[in-house]
Amino acid sequence: MAHIKLQEGVPGIMGPMLFSPATANPLNELAEILLRGANTLTPAEREMIATYVSAQNDCYFCQTVHGAVAAHHLGGNEKLIEDLKRDFATAAVSDKMKALLAIAGQVQKGGKQVTADDVDRARAQGATDQEIHDTVLIAAAFCMYNRYVDGLATWAPKEPKVYRATGKRLAEQGYVMSLENVAAGAGG
Amino acid sequence: MAHIKLQEGVPGIMGPMLFSPATANPLNELAEILLRGANTLTPAEREMIATYVSAQNDCYFCQTVHGAVAAHHLGGNEKLIEDLKRDFATAAVSDKMKALLAIAGQVQKGGKQVTADDVDRARAQGATDQEIHDTVLIAAAFCMYNRYVDGLATWAPKEPKVYRATGKRLAEQGYVMSLENVAAGAGG
Repeated sequence: MAHIKLQEGVPGIMGPMLFSPATANPLNELAEILLRGANTLTPAEREMIATYVSAQNDCYFCQTVHGAVAAHHLGGNEKLIEDLKRDFATAAVSDKMKALLAIAGQVQKGGKQVTADDVDRARAQGATDQEIHDTVLIAAAFCMYNRYVDGLATWAPKEPKVYRATGKRLAEQGYVMSLENVAAGAGG
Repeated sequence: MAHIKLQEGVPGIMGPMLFSPATANPLNELAEILLRGANTLTPAEREMIATYVSAQNDCYFCQTVHGAVAAHHLGGNEKLIEDLKRDFATAAVSDKMKALLAIAGQVQKGGKQVTADDVDRARAQGATDQEIHDTVLIAAAFCMYNRYVDGLATWAPKEPKVYRATGKRLAEQGYVMSLENVAAGAGG
């Protein structure tokens, strides 16, 4: 049971977002820009960073939703998402992505854990300042979203098909959605 | 030196915000609503939660700026801010604030660290669902801001008078400011 009274059957972050629409607006706007805005990192790459950080934070809802968004962007490649959550060093992603995931992993532990060596390694693989900035901010933002979801003990569905449907919707339609639609579709 | 090329002499989070104005907008809007929007918790109380979490994350810039904003709201009571960073249980704040700070401290460690007992204790001291929600989200948001500031190794001034001036400005004018003004006032 959630720590505060949230609408029943509304999954994960949607519960507190319906509870507090004023803060939901900038939270969704930030996710939209970070994960879907114009960027030299693909939406799939950015969703993989979000998924990895959420897995490190042990946030079931966020890692499963964003893993599903990433898999949708990748033509349904759920195996790659499982691989990178288990050990991104051996997953089928580019060396640049591995270096960016390493930075994201350090951010998850704490801002000061990111070293000049971590950044040099990413730069040596072709990462730009903008990509390093965006990786740090995506990782930092998911340290927020994950804590918002679990700090209020929100409910998360267990069925993979629910996440596949949500992943498809978010990949195609984005994060700035009508909260009324979410409320109306609760449980589905 | 910062991990990416930021404008020199721009303190803390302002450096990456000038680097990335598109993401600065929702980040500032979120801070404005959380810390200064209509709320049964006073701005001073919310800034104290932000300061405490930033101190737990060892983020010098954020704990010093938000400590200065809180002190300004409290008529210059810098001692109270130092007291609560050292040990909020013995600081001169209400029992409700102590229970909310305990929740914020758990969120800082990780979302799942917040227990039903933590929440019951806050409720027994009169905290509402909205106040519990806002405490969790403020704490979660500062786990993001702190990581953004330190994950990019931004520069922070050391002079207390700089923070007093910034604290006064933020307390009186808020977080949705013109980034051009910040750039023009760099170093000051």
